Amino acid sequence: MTRPLRYGMVGGGEGAFIGAVHRHALALDHRYVFTAGALSSTPEKARRSGAALGLAEDRTYPTWEAMLEGELARPADERIELVVVVTPNHVHYPVAKAFAGAGIHVVSDKPLVHTSEQADDLIATAERTGVVFAVTYNYTGYPMVKEARRYVQEGRLGRLRKVVVGYHQGWLATKLEDAGAKQAQWRTDPARSGAAGAIGDIGSHAENLMTTVTGLELEAICADLTTFVEGRRLDDDGNLLLRFGGGAKGVLMASQVEIGHENDLVLHVYGEDGALTWRQEDPNALWFAPLEGPVQLLRRGNPYLGDAAQGASRLPAGHPEAFLEAFANVYREVADAIGRHARGEDPAGDYPTVRDGARGVRFIERTVASAASDAKWTPF
Amino acid sequence: MTRPLRYGMVGGGEGAFIGAVHRHALALDHRYVFTAGALSSTPEKARRSGAALGLAEDRTYPTWEAMLEGELARPADERIELVVVVTPNHVHYPVAKAFAGAGIHVVSDKPLVHTSEQADDLIATAERTGVVFAVTYNYTGYPMVKEARRYVQEGRLGRLRKVVVGYHQGWLATKLEDAGAKQAQWRTDPARSGAAGAIGDIGSHAENLMTTVTGLELEAICADLTTFVEGRRLDDDGNLLLRFGGGAKGVLMASQVEIGHENDLVLHVYGEDGALTWRQEDPNALWFAPLEGPVQLLRRGNPYLGDAAQGASRLPAGHPEAFLEAFANVYREVADAIGRHARGEDPAGDYPTVRDGARGVRFIERTVASAASDAKWTPF
Amino acid sequence: MTRPLRYGMVGGGEGAFIGAVHRHALALDHRYVFTAGALSSTPEKARRSGAALGLAEDRTYPTWEAMLEGELARPADERIELVVVVTPNHVHYPVAKAFAGAGIHVVSDKPLVHTSEQADDLIATAERTGVVFAVTYNYTGYPMVKEARRYVQEGRLGRLRKVVVGYHQGWLATKLEDAGAKQAQWRTDPARSGAAGAIGDIGSHAENLMTTVTGLELEAICADLTTFVEGRRLDDDGNLLLRFGGGAKGVLMASQVEIGHENDLVLHVYGEDGALTWRQEDPNALWFAPLEGPVQLLRRGNPYLGDAAQGASRLPAGHPEAFLEAFANVYREVADAIGRHARGEDPAGDYPTVRDGARGVRFIERTVASAASDAKWTPF
Amino acid sequence: MTRPLRYGMVGGGEGAFIGAVHRHALALDHRYVFTAGALSSTPEKARRSGAALGLAEDRTYPTWEAMLEGELARPADERIELVVVVTPNHVHYPVAKAFAGAGIHVVSDKPLVHTSEQADDLIATAERTGVVFAVTYNYTGYPMVKEARRYVQEGRLGRLRKVVVGYHQGWLATKLEDAGAKQAQWRTDPARSGAAGAIGDIGSHAENLMTTVTGLELEAICADLTTFVEGRRLDDDGNLLLRFGGGAKGVLMASQVEIGHENDLVLHVYGEDGALTWRQEDPNALWFAPLEGPVQLLRRGNPYLGDAAQGASRLPAGHPEAFLEAFANVYREVADAIGRHARGEDPAGDYPTVRDGARGVRFIERTVASAASDAKWTPF
Repeated sequence: MTRPLRYGMVGGGEGAFIGAVHRHALALDHRYVFTAGALSSTPEKARRSGAALGLAEDRTYPTWEAMLEGELARPADERIELVVVVTPNHVHYPVAKAFAGAGIHVVSDKPLVHTSEQADDLIATAERTGVVFAVTYNYTGYPMVKEARRYVQEGRLGRLRKVVVGYHQGWLATKLEDAGAKQAQWRTDPARSGAAGAIGDIGSHAENLMTTVTGLELEAICADLTTFVEGRRLDDDGNLLLRFGGGAKGVLMASQVEIGHENDLVLHVYGEDGALTWRQEDPNALWFAPLEGPVQLLRRGNPYLGDAAQGASRLPAGHPEAFLEAFANVYREVADAIGRHARGEDPAGDYPTVRDGARGVRFIERTVASAASDAKWTPF
Repeated sequence: MTRPLRYGMVGGGEGAFIGAVHRHALALDHRYVFTAGALSSTPEKARRSGAALGLAEDRTYPTWEAMLEGELARPADERIELVVVVTPNHVHYPVAKAFAGAGIHVVSDKPLVHTSEQADDLIATAERTGVVFAVTYNYTGYPMVKEARRYVQEGRLGRLRKVVVGYHQGWLATKLEDAGAKQAQWRTDPARSGAAGAIGDIGSHAENLMTTVTGLELEAICADLTTFVEGRRLDDDGNLLLRFGGGAKGVLMASQVEIGHENDLVLHVYGEDGALTWRQEDPNALWFAPLEGPVQLLRRGNPYLGDAAQGASRLPAGHPEAFLEAFANVYREVADAIGRHARGEDPAGDYPTVRDGARGVRFIERTVASAASDAKWTPF
Repeated sequence: MTRPLRYGMVGGGEGAFIGAVHRHALALDHRYVFTAGALSSTPEKARRSGAALGLAEDRTYPTWEAMLEGELARPADERIELVVVVTPNHVHYPVAKAFAGAGIHVVSDKPLVHTSEQADDLIATAERTGVVFAVTYNYTGYPMVKEARRYVQEGRLGRLRKVVVGYHQGWLATKLEDAGAKQAQWRTDPARSGAAGAIGDIGSHAENLMTTVTGLELEAICADLTTFVEGRRLDDDGNLLLRFGGGAKGVLMASQVEIGHENDLVLHVYGEDGALTWRQEDPNALWFAPLEGPVQLLRRGNPYLGDAAQGASRLPAGHPEAFLEAFANVYREVADAIGRHARGEDPAGDYPTVRDGARGVRFIERTVASAASDAKWTPF
Repeated sequence: MTRPLRYGMVGGGEGAFIGAVHRHALALDHRYVFTAGALSSTPEKARRSGAALGLAEDRTYPTWEAMLEGELARPADERIELVVVVTPNHVHYPVAKAFAGAGIHVVSDKPLVHTSEQADDLIATAERTGVVFAVTYNYTGYPMVKEARRYVQEGRLGRLRKVVVGYHQGWLATKLEDAGAKQAQWRTDPARSGAAGAIGDIGSHAENLMTTVTGLELEAICADLTTFVEGRRLDDDGNLLLRFGGGAKGVLMASQVEIGHENDLVLHVYGEDGALTWRQEDPNALWFAPLEGPVQLLRRGNPYLGDAAQGASRLPAGHPEAFLEAFANVYREVADAIGRHARGEDPAGDYPTVRDGARGVRFIERTVASAASDAKWTPF
């Protein structure tokens, strides 16, 4: 077995759902060891969280700055090799810049940062130090998403015509942020979440999924953003018309007030010769409709799938895999990339990079701009 | 049993799918007798079609003008009481105007006519003579659509926030009109179909379904229309952002190039307190998601449904009803209305009227205008 | 158009669900005219029902005997050509025997009769007079059931191994027969319904569906019948292990106390090379699983289907057909058969015959015998 | 954080699917450290597997006997605390007996052993030494299975009437064991797999799921076992009629030749007041049908669920959990139980025990006996 990589985590302490998800995903394949943490912006909570998670006391830091300093002070073979940034959005930028700048590989949650300037700066930083820099657009880790991408790339859909992508949630249909829900609080706070609410949190996932599968490039968008819940400070619903280079069209919907939907990310891709449908809540299935003949139900774990889908699978067909495995697939690819980096090879791989993160930031910016504009089409 | 009503049909001869659908629907409840026809614009075909369908020779007319004249020449108790107009769209207007003007009740296929001027003229004509004038927006005849309307009207969804309606088809993904398909030919011909293709043929159904269920009124729209199949003369795909009076928002999609979809009309309605989903291809089901608690699967034929849904049902639960029964529900309501008219009562009832048809025409006009405009929002 | 056939109905008056279903199905294709009726065993109700349904007074008979006599007294070109028997089960035998014996074609509801002796007598009678004799196992009228049969017959499943058929209902989960429900009353009354309850009413449908699709012949059965609702006089749940000639095995389940199921008839057929699944409540779909490759979703109305499925369809794909059309398909085949009979041709066709009815009666008898036996296997 | 427990694994080396599943599940919650292994019956393969998995060389044993000896020779605070037995079935017994006898906690794969005598011996051994002894009937680890059990226990279904459970697979539809598939080889070999094939491998899962959810006790069974694939030495298909104490009935189906099914374990439970349906391939859903009112779709992660379902969940609603998390739930319960054991408390918990394993062995034995018997009912 390859030696497991040492990682440190920024954010993700007590009560943070996404930190635990990252740790589960990191643990799944025995490729990482949880070594250090600055788990909360409140030092006492940071300490308590570290203890609860079994971190050594001297690797439990009160701040990320202390963690960076402390880790750099250690010999290279003890030092963390990867930092995982799972704070509210506004903290991503300084942390990622500092660690990447110091030559420590980075996995950051999405949306990457608040502005394209920040994103460009991170790209530059990562290029300068050569670190692996991944952004956890975790949904593209699903095997059947990789299979969908293969179908597009191999031309089974022919020239693409249309994409319909929706990310439907209902959990913010009431003013949960006033009811003490921490998740709801920071996600609806512009200072911490950025310029957009639903569009930033989940619309950017939809953008990433769509782009990853189709390879299409946005040319112009037309957005309508709404805040349905009175007093909320960011959009909780957004709908966009899309125009891609080459003539394809699309619709993107992201909502957190659609009651009855839990985490319903759905992608339809239509080409001249066929179409695909994938739903995150039924992730082991991929529907393929050829121009002629019956619709086919492709399922994870079967021999008719391509290499990427096969390789991203851990269990036989019918033993459902889900969210966690998809998340872990990002980390597995990152571990492989770090391995290649260590051997002086090209670390590029099948994971979302800082450039994907930057495009997501741009998506949010342009959507907000379009929503504020009277012009129909806002160039992307 | 009430005496069956005598009806004549214009259009619907050999090879016309929709004419046969109307006749099946008219036959279903024994409320109508097929009495006269001008079944094709080609007199010889009209004659042949009449014979094939068992019409008397002297009620088989070469033209609709001859039918109008011939029927008016008969005594009232032999004369057709209803004309059913199932021609390509461009013929609806003169036929409907002439028969309604002559005091004969009208059922017209949709879209009603080509322009709002024509539509207004038909409204005026129908008001003048007092005839029953229905437009076969047949999808609102489904029992579970009536149940959805009830849920909205009774406030079970609370104040409405958002509507997502899609009408997804794939049958025009190739240039079928060049392959000798009669349906494809007239539907892609502006002279016969009107100013819009997919938006006119199926987008107008989506508009009607949405409006019937929600009662929301469109305030502004933002449309993008595309012709994906090279050489086609009308749009085969359209996507709209919607703004309703009172602040609700929406998305409407209509496509005939989405491979894998047959006749996939889907409606989602989201309110502050709950949400509904209905799909035409699974018409006996209606999904209701309350703000709290599990999603519920309402099914046709059960005692927990409201009167309108119960009344529009012919079979017990689990014995699926479908397209034809929904279509027949329109005709049953029309028969009841004609009965009330005959007794001097108010013929209003639960069927789509000439005013619904006019709104549908306006929807097409405004969509085409919006698609041609650089302004984001086109007032409705 | 072929001249419509004159039919008379026995049973099916006020409050009888199945009589109305038959009349809707008979009306659908304009192939029949409702001409005479003995609609109830109560003469006054028979008269009232006839009036309500628009029957001529002199064709509304107080008893089936009167109808037979009255119709035979008329000239051949006025006389009913077909009798439709939709009474409770115990009346099927005398009516069918009398009319078939008099040379009038017969469509009888199922189960055909109470005993195999009666069934054999009807076979003999029908052979003697040569009449068309159909039994409304209506579920085999569905286009996708015909497609399933084609797949088996063309060998796409290879040699058959196993059949799992279930007919799941929940409507008799409580003692509805004590709550004034007419349907529940006679169906749980041995004198009217026969020796079996759920097995007779719906188990026989399951048997017919399974046999029609697979062509397999039962060799031995092992049945367990239960009456779950206290005080009920017939089984309301039955489960059988099946052995077919040639080595195939099977499971048949029929229940009327499975809450949550409405009319859930499901068939799975497994062969060496593939498998099929069809569900009555989603009748436009047929799932085909080949040994290799993805599962396929076949849907009614598509060009890849066989002739029988295509011919049994009235609407394009995506315009769902359902129970009524399947029922009408039986009547359409019967009308064609009567036409061939009239022309002196072989009336055999794609409809369930008196022999299917007899096999169904045998199925009920053997199931009841097996349930009463301590031996594991009861020969069929 | 509680200190992670040291575990050793017997079996599960190269090419063994289930060993990897256990290790993933053990890793998920950071409650265990993989410390020692006797990973293959071939010493060289055992060594290679240990190295590949990162085991220390001196904890990589050539045989399970060597592992037991080696670990017992270590001080208690280094010694493995748990042995995980994931060998082919015939090895379970000696390994489990030896380790349990030595006071090391045991998790064994299922079916537990080959005979009830062996099972009883293991029960006695575990009681003597007081170790925690779990059997990985992993499907009962699913949160919605726990919710189903709650519904039954709280009486929401009323008195139970009927259970239908099926475990449908198709992977052994051809003679895979002759094509070099290791899994297929030992599972179809009586010496390694035991007296039954499909019934042992998956039928016993169905039995466990059914019993866990319903609490019903089998009174008598009637089984038909078949070997469809020529030359195979064990059953590949089995169907049973069931009778429970108290009058409930049931059907159990287990097949590995049903093409089109991957790992399709389905449970239906019917009571006097309601019914439940759960499917392993859609594990986040549980359908509840009350006697009155619409069917409800319960979904994992929602606040309306009971404590056991909530506690067995790691992710919010809509972020699907699947096979691995269910498996890990067994291990989490075991870790808690070992913790209680260490503190001198009662280690009983919500995991399947050696007694469940013994009942599963009995189920296999009685099924094989019934299949060989001419009597309809074989007492359980």
